[in-house]
Amino acid sequence: MPVVYKFERTANYYETDRMDVVHHSNYIRWFEEARVEFMKAAGCPYDKMEQNGIMMPVLEVNCTYKNSVRFGETVIIHTHISKFNGFKTEVSYEVYGKDNGELKACGSSTHCFSNTSLKPVRIKNTAPEIYDKFKNALEGTDII
Amino acid sequence: MPVVYKFERTANYYETDRMDVVHHSNYIRWFEEARVEFMKAAGCPYDKMEQNGIMMPVLEVNCTYKNSVRFGETVIIHTHISKFNGFKTEVSYEVYGKDNGELKACGSSTHCFSNTSLKPVRIKNTAPEIYDKFKNALEGTDII
Amino acid sequence: MPVVYKFERTANYYETDRMDVVHHSNYIRWFEEARVEFMKAAGCPYDKMEQNGIMMPVLEVNCTYKNSVRFGETVIIHTHISKFNGFKTEVSYEVYGKDNGELKACGSSTHCFSNTSLKPVRIKNTAPEIYDKFKNALEGTDII
Amino acid sequence: MPVVYKFERTANYYETDRMDVVHHSNYIRWFEEARVEFMKAAGCPYDKMEQNGIMMPVLEVNCTYKNSVRFGETVIIHTHISKFNGFKTEVSYEVYGKDNGELKACGSSTHCFSNTSLKPVRIKNTAPEIYDKFKNALEGTDII
Repeated sequence: MPVVYKFERTANYYETDRMDVVHHSNYIRWFEEARVEFMKAAGCPYDKMEQNGIMMPVLEVNCTYKNSVRFGETVIIHTHISKFNGFKTEVSYEVYGKDNGELKACGSSTHCFSNTSLKPVRIKNTAPEIYDKFKNALEGTDII
Repeated sequence: MPVVYKFERTANYYETDRMDVVHHSNYIRWFEEARVEFMKAAGCPYDKMEQNGIMMPVLEVNCTYKNSVRFGETVIIHTHISKFNGFKTEVSYEVYGKDNGELKACGSSTHCFSNTSLKPVRIKNTAPEIYDKFKNALEGTDII
Repeated sequence: MPVVYKFERTANYYETDRMDVVHHSNYIRWFEEARVEFMKAAGCPYDKMEQNGIMMPVLEVNCTYKNSVRFGETVIIHTHISKFNGFKTEVSYEVYGKDNGELKACGSSTHCFSNTSLKPVRIKNTAPEIYDKFKNALEGTDII
Repeated sequence: MPVVYKFERTANYYETDRMDVVHHSNYIRWFEEARVEFMKAAGCPYDKMEQNGIMMPVLEVNCTYKNSVRFGETVIIHTHISKFNGFKTEVSYEVYGKDNGELKACGSSTHCFSNTSLKPVRIKNTAPEIYDKFKNALEGTDII
């Protein structure tokens, strides 16, 4: 079982739209926040990775919206690595309401590893310690 | 063939991130801009629809990123209705660089029609003239 | 001395721009986050106020930028009410780097109280308990 | 009289908040859009300047809100250089409703010129042609 990281987040006023709910584009940003925290917890903080010249550009993103989130509502985002082959990584997200456990949205993002010129790299060669951390997070041998 | 609407857009400074490219979440917002202009061109302006108590909440969204867009770069977003059954509507988007015709990204968003309480409605009954416009846009009997 | 509330916040990736620092517009959003938390701590949660038909539209906002904030950096925002006469409220903010105590930015926002049609109201009449909380926060008779 | 540049802009759905008006933070972004277009028109396109290693970080920003802007509403932003001494530049903005000429908001932003490490430079020495363009825009000897 993959390691699941839980990240808590309260919806900001500026994230709502005139429908009185969080605008759908912001979930993509919340996924990023959850991913950044997940990687920190998994021992691969994203800012350190970038300092070492490794980036994780987004290749694909998707989100399915189930229930809306309102201003001031707290959600818990469950994040895990759902696919990883050393080249592409898929991270999956489920957004739950903290109060009632209601599923608000779910989705995933797919990434490659690249150098600072956004050229893809094979992470096992470039940074084997990162490869191992992702492998562990996928296979669940590490607990966050 | 469905009606394809072309919408031109220049990347703003505040839309870039530290990777020096437009942040991936902004494409979801560009899709919305393109959709709003598409609907205006198709004779169903979104603000009029909402004034008449009909909304189009997003059920799903996805985007595949092919090439990055930089500050000041102009893109042309090709938008068309790819599925429509009177209940769900899928709108598809292709983002091209204006200068070189390069495909930057493609994706789609899926919507239902709802009343102002976000309760789904069958648009053929609620607003048959909107049903016809969407049907025409799907089947291409109208030219934008 | 007015009550000062401290709110901690880490800069998100999507908040940076191509200059590799948090985009200046986001500080205005951080001020809002800090204000919302301040009001919660002061016993006037903003969402409750809005449920009771009272809003606090922004009349003015300003920010002076001293030092940039980078991705992953944590700031502490000191927030207090700097002016309050029952009609207009000025809230002031100072953003400090958590690591080094460096002043990153400071600014303020001015608000009136309004009903849901954005028509100004005199809060002492409309909601005397909110008037008292703001008065206390200005005069510092309450500790957060 | 300084050169005034007029920039037209329609409010996006994702720019609104639950108060059903454009969120106040977005005006700061609109100012940036207007400034970028102003500089393009004045012969100093911002992206070219940055390619030549000159940046214009924001030192201060302020905005006064007069009337709200709703989704789909078009505004015209009048932009001009209000102060310039070769070191600091103040750009002023007035946002008018296109339909009724109503003043929606006004404000200004103050900038210095810097190198890519965000270290201030005296533009008259670093890039005299840019100095001249700004001087002309301030004094109005050029027409946009």
